[in-house]
Amino acid sequence: MSWNTFGRVFRMTTWGESHGPALGVVVDGCPPGLALDEAAIQPFLDARRPGQNKFTTQRNEPDQVRVLSGVFEGRTTGTPISLMIENTDQRSKDYSEIAQAYRPGHADYAYDAKYGLRDYRGGGRSSARETAARVAAGAVARLVIPEVTILAYVAEIGGDAINPGNFDAAEISNNPFWCPDAAAAARWEALVDDARKSGSSLGAVVECVATGVPAGWGAPIYAKLDADLASAMMGINAVKGVEIGDGFGAARLTGEQNADPMRAGDNGPSFEANHAGGIAGGISTGQPVVCRVPFKPTSSILTPVLSITRDGAETEVRTKGRHDPCVGIRGTPVVEAMMALVLADHKLLHRAQVGN
Amino acid sequence: MSWNTFGRVFRMTTWGESHGPALGVVVDGCPPGLALDEAAIQPFLDARRPGQNKFTTQRNEPDQVRVLSGVFEGRTTGTPISLMIENTDQRSKDYSEIAQAYRPGHADYAYDAKYGLRDYRGGGRSSARETAARVAAGAVARLVIPEVTILAYVAEIGGDAINPGNFDAAEISNNPFWCPDAAAAARWEALVDDARKSGSSLGAVVECVATGVPAGWGAPIYAKLDADLASAMMGINAVKGVEIGDGFGAARLTGEQNADPMRAGDNGPSFEANHAGGIAGGISTGQPVVCRVPFKPTSSILTPVLSITRDGAETEVRTKGRHDPCVGIRGTPVVEAMMALVLADHKLLHRAQVGN
Amino acid sequence: MSWNTFGRVFRMTTWGESHGPALGVVVDGCPPGLALDEAAIQPFLDARRPGQNKFTTQRNEPDQVRVLSGVFEGRTTGTPISLMIENTDQRSKDYSEIAQAYRPGHADYAYDAKYGLRDYRGGGRSSARETAARVAAGAVARLVIPEVTILAYVAEIGGDAINPGNFDAAEISNNPFWCPDAAAAARWEALVDDARKSGSSLGAVVECVATGVPAGWGAPIYAKLDADLASAMMGINAVKGVEIGDGFGAARLTGEQNADPMRAGDNGPSFEANHAGGIAGGISTGQPVVCRVPFKPTSSILTPVLSITRDGAETEVRTKGRHDPCVGIRGTPVVEAMMALVLADHKLLHRAQVGN
Amino acid sequence: MSWNTFGRVFRMTTWGESHGPALGVVVDGCPPGLALDEAAIQPFLDARRPGQNKFTTQRNEPDQVRVLSGVFEGRTTGTPISLMIENTDQRSKDYSEIAQAYRPGHADYAYDAKYGLRDYRGGGRSSARETAARVAAGAVARLVIPEVTILAYVAEIGGDAINPGNFDAAEISNNPFWCPDAAAAARWEALVDDARKSGSSLGAVVECVATGVPAGWGAPIYAKLDADLASAMMGINAVKGVEIGDGFGAARLTGEQNADPMRAGDNGPSFEANHAGGIAGGISTGQPVVCRVPFKPTSSILTPVLSITRDGAETEVRTKGRHDPCVGIRGTPVVEAMMALVLADHKLLHRAQVGN
Repeated sequence: MSWNTFGRVFRMTTWGESHGPALGVVVDGCPPGLALDEAAIQPFLDARRPGQNKFTTQRNEPDQVRVLSGVFEGRTTGTPISLMIENTDQRSKDYSEIAQAYRPGHADYAYDAKYGLRDYRGGGRSSARETAARVAAGAVARLVIPEVTILAYVAEIGGDAINPGNFDAAEISNNPFWCPDAAAAARWEALVDDARKSGSSLGAVVECVATGVPAGWGAPIYAKLDADLASAMMGINAVKGVEIGDGFGAARLTGEQNADPMRAGDNGPSFEANHAGGIAGGISTGQPVVCRVPFKPTSSILTPVLSITRDGAETEVRTKGRHDPCVGIRGTPVVEAMMALVLADHKLLHRAQVGN
Repeated sequence: MSWNTFGRVFRMTTWGESHGPALGVVVDGCPPGLALDEAAIQPFLDARRPGQNKFTTQRNEPDQVRVLSGVFEGRTTGTPISLMIENTDQRSKDYSEIAQAYRPGHADYAYDAKYGLRDYRGGGRSSARETAARVAAGAVARLVIPEVTILAYVAEIGGDAINPGNFDAAEISNNPFWCPDAAAAARWEALVDDARKSGSSLGAVVECVATGVPAGWGAPIYAKLDADLASAMMGINAVKGVEIGDGFGAARLTGEQNADPMRAGDNGPSFEANHAGGIAGGISTGQPVVCRVPFKPTSSILTPVLSITRDGAETEVRTKGRHDPCVGIRGTPVVEAMMALVLADHKLLHRAQVGN
Repeated sequence: MSWNTFGRVFRMTTWGESHGPALGVVVDGCPPGLALDEAAIQPFLDARRPGQNKFTTQRNEPDQVRVLSGVFEGRTTGTPISLMIENTDQRSKDYSEIAQAYRPGHADYAYDAKYGLRDYRGGGRSSARETAARVAAGAVARLVIPEVTILAYVAEIGGDAINPGNFDAAEISNNPFWCPDAAAAARWEALVDDARKSGSSLGAVVECVATGVPAGWGAPIYAKLDADLASAMMGINAVKGVEIGDGFGAARLTGEQNADPMRAGDNGPSFEANHAGGIAGGISTGQPVVCRVPFKPTSSILTPVLSITRDGAETEVRTKGRHDPCVGIRGTPVVEAMMALVLADHKLLHRAQVGN
Repeated sequence: MSWNTFGRVFRMTTWGESHGPALGVVVDGCPPGLALDEAAIQPFLDARRPGQNKFTTQRNEPDQVRVLSGVFEGRTTGTPISLMIENTDQRSKDYSEIAQAYRPGHADYAYDAKYGLRDYRGGGRSSARETAARVAAGAVARLVIPEVTILAYVAEIGGDAINPGNFDAAEISNNPFWCPDAAAAARWEALVDDARKSGSSLGAVVECVATGVPAGWGAPIYAKLDADLASAMMGINAVKGVEIGDGFGAARLTGEQNADPMRAGDNGPSFEANHAGGIAGGISTGQPVVCRVPFKPTSSILTPVLSITRDGAETEVRTKGRHDPCVGIRGTPVVEAMMALVLADHKLLHRAQVGN
């Protein structure tokens, strides 16, 4: 099945292929009266945009968004918001090779196995270009949750992690890696550049923290806030896992070590730790909502890898085109967008049932 | 919002509280003509059932399932299948303490913050007792996917991992830990018993492997097979993360190390590795579908932990009742059930669109 | 596909067959804190209950509802509310005839064609007994919309319509027909009794009016309030049509005749007519929401009708069992329940998006 | 709430306002491998297109569709199909009057009451221009159900009905009214022209018949085929009712008159009548699926009608712009499209559960 809608009451439906004329998203269920225009969306797309430095793919896409519906005189009307981004740099290259051979680690074989045919130009629908649509929708979602601040950053590249002691939020946009640790950013420059030059690729871990989420968002049992975040993050291209709070680390703690004691506070409880990542029983607790997301190294590498053709013959595939040496970097704005989309949906779901 | 339905076309809706008269599940969308009776479900419930040995809670529930609808003359009819399990051992204890004080690390505070009231008897709806309903529904899901074999086991308790070299599937049901490594099982006996005696608790990691999944299941972009698994697993009580294939480990590999080369095989491609965990672009590849799930140590411990009352006063909470020293153990059949539910749904979704 | 869930955020999932051990409904998404117990539901079930007079089937079912979850100390908790009604009068008769021959006009053939098998005892899932579950859920829905008053009544039986000039709401519960016109009720007594004695059956038209619905409920474009009502009503057993406001009559008016002029009022506009039935553009206008629903005469009649057996041989079928001479009568409480369910869902949907 | 997605597995999401830059639809869940290009869609849009004769609005829109995604080398790929139609004739008129005063019978007041603001240019989202998107999606849906033939026609205008004895399918496209009765078409010419000249408007009844629907489509209990059709039709602009088969007429028949006897046939049963309109228990029977849909006369008339302004002051509104004297005429292709969308969805739902 094709299933291109995300969300329960605040919903987005995305469409478009890597090398089609355009891609886009329809945002439905947005509250009316919010100030919205292209300028409110564009900065988020610019953050995800390729070709901005040597550490990302050299495909050059302006990713200029157009608002086609749902906004009148600068305000959302409550009707569906259609956002479109035209593809401009679909380099006219020869796709005959990729048309025949499956790129290992990519979705080529899986799409063919499922649908019996595929748009092989740049990965078609399975391309990470689709995430531009999510980022655009995420910009709208942010307007729905002004009480929340979302911050994602890269915490690790190629196994080289930041030092939490060096964490400086202001540093994140100072380097091309969304890295909050200036020292790590300096190290990564060489690391990523080496991978780029050698046609290799590196994995990364992105962390995302949402502060200002009030206690009470989340829809147990099968739309728990953490379950929806897990789905949202795992669905991003190249993501292979999700952690909430201490995640896998919690499995190594005792109940005493993992405790989240509560104290009396002025506005609800004050918490002494946040092992749980701001979510208990699938419902937000008022603490920061914290998740961690690993991105695999892209399978697009210069080294030949064994594969097969559509006809079942063995072959080798190597990627000579434009690619990201570390897709996790450009995944960072996408993680933020998915966090915003999940939270906006849950804010509306909560007030549907409880009324505030 | 309350959201107690899981699945898109093969769906379950669960209901019930820990200390209410009963709990249950309605399974909808099940294909007709499948042989089903209580005996086909009961063994899975027995695997999850408490009180079977000293390593799990001493609450004694027979967890006897009744089929109330959807089956006629031993076959599913295509109409909703209602399964009910009566609660029998709701020990009549004094809940006045828990009614007033929030158990830290539990959902008590979050439910109160959300709904303004809560059923505090044994955690009410947030109790892991709800997972009995999932296990019952999972037994039905298995009938939908006879081509698939699902195997979950505990790979790690309290930071003590199995040795993959000792892996023996036959060993899994030979010990009370669902442990495939006899040596590890022996170590865990002391480990878990110590935790039990001291009123402490331990985390665990459960692995689940589904073999026989054909290439082509999964619904990109927003119902990817891995995204749906992530949601399914993260929604289990005490789970704080999910990995598909190499998961977080993949973030530390290079593209060359993470490659999944394909060779020509007799029935579709043969793969030389499975870093991707059997899923590419959200679609199954025909390889085993592999996920890993960390369970936190339960917050129900003897050691007093700081907390607050409903009125905002500070207090201490310690758990004197019957509890699991390692909830991950009994989570294992639940992980299997969720895997079955996701796969059954995707099999039906796939044939909706593609017709086979 | 089997699809037994109704509603978008306020949802019910029903289950159960006519002659199974029980039937029931899980109500999900209900706001917390509402006073609810069996006594709040039972009167609505009693109104629909069979065997109360000679004008309805003589099947004798107490239709006693049990609340199994979602309520604590007399209040809804926000978690799923499971309601169950046991079947008690499944008369042990010989079903071999109906097992083989399709009752014409019933769903027997269609279920067999779809599922390849069917529970033939009393129609199984296709029996109107399922509507008891809707009525129970409808009683919960009413608690969500205390601002709304819902009134359904029979406006026509066997082509004999009430005189609107005689309309007296107080009369509706004074006769066994839910008839607001005492003179019509007197005529119907003979009409329906004749049909009953001769083993024939009669159609009916039920009207339903909801007053107190504020302007603004409804979710354009594909969950319009009138579209959802149409789906809700058409899905009731034996219903073959729906009208909103003037319905088919509007197709015979000119634009001038069909106008709904607005005047200034103290609380929003005052309307001079209500041809539109309280809904414009799929959104409520603040006027009474009005719909009309025709029930066909039941196909269960004494006169033999040509049919075929499962094996394709021709045969004749006549119904000797207990049946309603006019199913529209007992459909009246069901129409009210569906109106309540749709309105409760839309109230919550509206405040999800707009916040009040 | 805004809810702009229709369908369960074959889904469309529409967007766009009457006077925005464009409108469109995203079709999701479409099977792969179907031949599709603009030329397969355009004829259906042309049938609905305004400005083609004096009996429809003089707004001149080419309604040229563009396929932006989901099709590769002339075949559907299984990924979302984005279709866009640019608005070209948004006449730059002065909207200050309609911005302030609510047009009675239109959705103006309801949208304002719901959302607190509205795009008043030509009705914005509530304009029937939205139905162009449905017609485009309906053209895709038809490709999914090649076994089905759908035929809609106007059966009545202004109370003047066709003579069923004159029914000639070939006549339908011979006149500007989609009228299958040449004599009626001749009468309607004067009737509609009079209404047009006098600035009045007329209602109409559209009938739609789908032949070739196999027995077994439909998803009881809450996605019955007739219930979904009711929702689909009632959601079309200006529609105030729906009938399946004999509809309201069935309420005036006895059980004997309404019987649908079955005889043995070569391929399944042969039916002697079709009072039920091809649907029993919410499932298709193999007979033609028949529905009737009344369109009200448009509220856009020259005669002044009392209304109020946004500020609550009384005023009069008359419509001087371009409008359809009988909106039911152009509703006919929309009825066909909605029938196709419902049937395509149910075909896929059926094979999801039953596998063929």
